[in-house]
Amino acid sequence: MCNNHNNITTRVLCVPAAKTPFELTTIERRDLRPDDVLIDIKYCGICHSDIHNAHDDFGSGVFPMVPGHEIAGVVTAVGCSVTKFTAGDRVGVGCFVDSCGECDFCLRGEEQFCKKGVVVVFNSIDYDGNLTYGGYSQKIVVKDKFVVRIPDALELDVASPLLCAGITTYSPLRHWNAGPGKKVAIVGMGGLGHLAVQFAHMMGTEVTVLSHNLNKKEEAFASGANHYYRTNDPATFTELAGQFDLILNTVSANIDVDAFLSILNVDGALVNLGLPNKPDQYNVFSLFAGRRSITASNVGGIKETQEMLDFSAEHGIAPMIEVIRADQVDEAYEHVLRGDVRYRFVIDMSTL
Amino acid sequence: MCNNHNNITTRVLCVPAAKTPFELTTIERRDLRPDDVLIDIKYCGICHSDIHNAHDDFGSGVFPMVPGHEIAGVVTAVGCSVTKFTAGDRVGVGCFVDSCGECDFCLRGEEQFCKKGVVVVFNSIDYDGNLTYGGYSQKIVVKDKFVVRIPDALELDVASPLLCAGITTYSPLRHWNAGPGKKVAIVGMGGLGHLAVQFAHMMGTEVTVLSHNLNKKEEAFASGANHYYRTNDPATFTELAGQFDLILNTVSANIDVDAFLSILNVDGALVNLGLPNKPDQYNVFSLFAGRRSITASNVGGIKETQEMLDFSAEHGIAPMIEVIRADQVDEAYEHVLRGDVRYRFVIDMSTL
Repeated sequence: MCNNHNNITTRVLCVPAAKTPFELTTIERRDLRPDDVLIDIKYCGICHSDIHNAHDDFGSGVFPMVPGHEIAGVVTAVGCSVTKFTAGDRVGVGCFVDSCGECDFCLRGEEQFCKKGVVVVFNSIDYDGNLTYGGYSQKIVVKDKFVVRIPDALELDVASPLLCAGITTYSPLRHWNAGPGKKVAIVGMGGLGHLAVQFAHMMGTEVTVLSHNLNKKEEAFASGANHYYRTNDPATFTELAGQFDLILNTVSANIDVDAFLSILNVDGALVNLGLPNKPDQYNVFSLFAGRRSITASNVGGIKETQEMLDFSAEHGIAPMIEVIRADQVDEAYEHVLRGDVRYRFVIDMSTL
Repeated sequence: MCNNHNNITTRVLCVPAAKTPFELTTIERRDLRPDDVLIDIKYCGICHSDIHNAHDDFGSGVFPMVPGHEIAGVVTAVGCSVTKFTAGDRVGVGCFVDSCGECDFCLRGEEQFCKKGVVVVFNSIDYDGNLTYGGYSQKIVVKDKFVVRIPDALELDVASPLLCAGITTYSPLRHWNAGPGKKVAIVGMGGLGHLAVQFAHMMGTEVTVLSHNLNKKEEAFASGANHYYRTNDPATFTELAGQFDLILNTVSANIDVDAFLSILNVDGALVNLGLPNKPDQYNVFSLFAGRRSITASNVGGIKETQEMLDFSAEHGIAPMIEVIRADQVDEAYEHVLRGDVRYRFVIDMSTL
């Protein structure tokens, strides 16, 4: 049974202008198209990139803005051609809500590289010309291909950060073949890092956490880390020289690239997941001796997001979260900016 | 029939101290070991890294020094256990003359990454504790495993630059899977660049040369290039945005890394073959959008060097050379430093 919903209004949290406090308002979602899914959002995670956009750090913000791209909820209606979902299904939506579907990248499930340009869930111009509004909201309408299924083993609140932080760490581990016999280092034990440790561990790699202090050592070991080192101790880099096949750098600040390259094995890759504001620098010598590489990874495709959720359910992977009310989002942003969250805030949309 | 040669003396060109003119002198090569090959050197190419070492640019020079790592000659005697070569064989020696032979890298033919540390043909401490002296010389003694066969189709003078410039460009093209359907850009049309163009073309890729001026356009097209662009025209980078699967940067100067990253396709690699003195810098955004990487490659292993020589013979690949006398080496160095050579100097050792 399909629905032809029109006039879908929903409460949302929006920022009226860059760096202003959130306000509660109401917007209208688009009328349900044949391939659309209407979702009652139960939880939405807070990601550092929500803050970058709300503060217009990239200069591309359109306001008022409704952030949010870690959406977990329940289907309430589907368009007439939707066969994959039905009312009552537990589902998620991440960063993307449309892509051309025809280019090489879309065809192989890497919509993040879509040649036409992927449509992001908020602060993005949709193919119909309308601005997208994200998940700090009670309802959202999304094309069925961009909706993933949340396995029963995952609670919706716990699942929500997986839609961005999860796929952002899972995808590069898969792409660079993390698995048995490989040594992986995770730089930073925060929202991304604590998930990267769990994924890398469950993929069978030997996992080392590199953090600027020892504060999260116990949690890292509980998450599956085999080793934990301080990055503000130069001896760390001497001791670990040439060790790692893969380093996932989850830190957005500038780093000493040459120091991290020195602890890579031959053909090892330093993969950046965060975006520092200023350029990084490196010495070609650091790459040369071991054919090492500096690279980066940007979330992952829809098919891989589903795979990541299934993997998480199967292996008991779960973000550690702090569930907050809608009126606590401004305060939560301040905590995130101070790095004072273990490890991911999730907004309970029933409080909106 | 094997030989047990002792007291092998040879004329050499040496630099007595950093940045001093070459002098003619005589040294003794080691007594032939069971697995050694004695080679009459006919030609030795001049590589920019000879100059870096002779000028002690890396601070690791030991003087007097005999440079030279692009050696082509003829076997005159072999040690008692050598079965691979016999007197009269046309052979070459490149950068390396020993490695541990036991580590993972040696076992898979990538001696350049040897865990014990590969022994370089000159200015390197051999495993017996002696300093190595290179190919600006009439005779050299080298372990058989580090001697390659020069196919009959290649003249010895033309073959000599292949031993370093050839393998330095061939290896990364193979490692990053250059072949039909791929687009490769070669930055710099010099000693390395003009070989890279020939290899990439014969591997079936679409080849673009990126050079700071148009001076070598005709030679590039004659070598197999399909396109030629100036790098000092910003329009080049706009026009070529997102095009290349692989960029081989043969230039040793610092480059605008972000500009070159912008012309890579998704998963494309910018491979540095030269070593600038100062650090390069990049913006993580440039890597992020297309999972692009910055990396480097350092010559190649012995097995691959043989493969490269055979490939060159089969496909008619040949460095363009200027053969010089031994008393012209100082002058030739000045030409190389000015970039005024088409494309590689080769010393005729009969003039020593």
